[in-house]
Amino acid sequence: DPMVDCKACKKRFRFDDLEENVCPDCGGELTEPRQFNMMFKTFMGPVEDDSSVVYMRPETAQGIFVNFLNVQASMRMKLPFGIAQIGKAFRNEITPGNFIFRTREFEQMEIEYFVEPGTDEEWYETWIKDRFDWYLRYGVREERLRLEIHSEADLAHYAKACTDIEYAFPFGWKELEGIANRTDYDLKQHTETSGKRLEFFNDQTHEKVVPYVIEPSGGVDRAVLVFLVDAFDEETVRGETRVVLRLHPKLAPIKAAIFPLVKRDGMPEKARRIVEDLQPHFAVFYDEGGSVGRRYRRMDEAGTPFGITVDSETLENDTVTVRDRDTMEQVRVKIAGLREHLTERMEDWTGNDK
Amino acid sequence: DPMVDCKACKKRFRFDDLEENVCPDCGGELTEPRQFNMMFKTFMGPVEDDSSVVYMRPETAQGIFVNFLNVQASMRMKLPFGIAQIGKAFRNEITPGNFIFRTREFEQMEIEYFVEPGTDEEWYETWIKDRFDWYLRYGVREERLRLEIHSEADLAHYAKACTDIEYAFPFGWKELEGIANRTDYDLKQHTETSGKRLEFFNDQTHEKVVPYVIEPSGGVDRAVLVFLVDAFDEETVRGETRVVLRLHPKLAPIKAAIFPLVKRDGMPEKARRIVEDLQPHFAVFYDEGGSVGRRYRRMDEAGTPFGITVDSETLENDTVTVRDRDTMEQVRVKIAGLREHLTERMEDWTGNDK
Repeated sequence: DPMVDCKACKKRFRFDDLEENVCPDCGGELTEPRQFNMMFKTFMGPVEDDSSVVYMRPETAQGIFVNFLNVQASMRMKLPFGIAQIGKAFRNEITPGNFIFRTREFEQMEIEYFVEPGTDEEWYETWIKDRFDWYLRYGVREERLRLEIHSEADLAHYAKACTDIEYAFPFGWKELEGIANRTDYDLKQHTETSGKRLEFFNDQTHEKVVPYVIEPSGGVDRAVLVFLVDAFDEETVRGETRVVLRLHPKLAPIKAAIFPLVKRDGMPEKARRIVEDLQPHFAVFYDEGGSVGRRYRRMDEAGTPFGITVDSETLENDTVTVRDRDTMEQVRVKIAGLREHLTERMEDWTGNDK
Repeated sequence: DPMVDCKACKKRFRFDDLEENVCPDCGGELTEPRQFNMMFKTFMGPVEDDSSVVYMRPETAQGIFVNFLNVQASMRMKLPFGIAQIGKAFRNEITPGNFIFRTREFEQMEIEYFVEPGTDEEWYETWIKDRFDWYLRYGVREERLRLEIHSEADLAHYAKACTDIEYAFPFGWKELEGIANRTDYDLKQHTETSGKRLEFFNDQTHEKVVPYVIEPSGGVDRAVLVFLVDAFDEETVRGETRVVLRLHPKLAPIKAAIFPLVKRDGMPEKARRIVEDLQPHFAVFYDEGGSVGRRYRRMDEAGTPFGITVDSETLENDTVTVRDRDTMEQVRVKIAGLREHLTERMEDWTGNDK
């Protein structure tokens, strides 16, 4: 939105809200309307004046470009190679919302992948495919994902090409991640401004090159939102609504819940021992409260892939039932082989028909 | 430091720097001197005025208190229990410096541990010991660590007791982490301001209690600095200075480096196969550049605990030499048992005499 600033009191107003062309607060002269700066302004050091104004970063990428030579030299990397990072970024969004879809403080994940000029188009296509497949690999439904190619008019000034990965949220198709061919724009800009040459010296051809950069850039929060939204399911089981979070086992915060069928006959003690055995290897949850059916349901909602029940048969032959979150099927498994059984089933998980 | 603000132009000045009691910029009236607010001020939304002023969080703890009931109820926790988090905090420090010791944007790690009132002193002592031992467990020299108990005069207004863990940095003994008994101060304050009761209902005694809170609060960056400083060592080996980072294997960014002795006779291929075998289990590094001695030295500086060399004997009997970063001793190990050998030695690492 176009905004104006008061030259006297420094306050900022939406241009559309003004009735007169003077500051509504102090009557001062206004600047020309201009696009609102989405960056958060603050003051570093003890004095709040123009010389101490700083802005919070609206993207994390520039830190990678500044460190390009340090990483390349200390790790002795050759082209192509990438630097990946996640970190906080801040944008003073006018319309945050849709839960964690758009927030003013968010976590970005970015890769800057440095390639020989001329190979950039190929690497651009490779990264689009790799990033699209990443969402599929963690169980996101393919029919809810699509690629949107930016038209030439939509491209940022530094980009040769850009493709967004979009997801069909309940509130519409929205961008999850963008893969851009940023060319040699950033390294050249940093070189120009700092005077420090950001180049790669190819010791076989003895030539210096300014690499081209392919940048996959996504939001950690948005990815989390997609995994949650996509996994959320409600189904009718024996006349009742079952809420189940069909999370990929690798994403499930708890991998298995352990239940003693009843709170006596040594079942809690046996269940606790299973907790102790599994705990060092993956996150597990112990629950002895309420009927076992209710305990299963709680874990379905939390997305826990396996429910393990210690019952009277356990006391006889050291087996437990393992109940599958997705199919609700139960199998009996020897306690001695339980960890291996769960590990294998987590590795083999290939999604479900939902 | 005491600061004054100009009531007219809103600029801020160090009180001690002023020659007259008016604004040096616009001649405006000044506020009374007051302690400088260490928080970063910014504006949320499109308009920069008093109603849009927000401050960046100077500590992460309050988010935990606000979520106390959500976590307690959804996880059905009983006292005592804790909530741990790491996250960014921001302080407009006047004197940042000493590398990453004091920065304006930093990563805090905090635990709020909720206990029955009356048991707080015992838990306070337990956490001091646990947190002290945490640094020891990752290899920090005990003689460089000490506890500093805050005197009553030094205590923050909300604290009943506080103990700092300090480290003997090259620039003096400095605080690494503080363990405070915050009593029921925060939960009561939040309850008072929000009107939402932050209490724990004990379903055995049918009593409501406002828990006391023990808070271990440290800096991720400071812990990293300590692990680096403490691990850094220089020693003379055969007349040359060896720089070695004696990092605990769990902290070492690379666990093992794999070297072909020479770049021929199939040694690089054999070494690459070892890289592929180990890669899924821990971070490894392949290096074929320069003499093997130089390659060892580079890894010593990076803190890599093991150097694995493929030589002519490898081609005969499928063994490699494993060289220890700390002692520089070498042993021959069967490739088939290599992963297990390294895993065991990493688990068994108990420090070194440095």
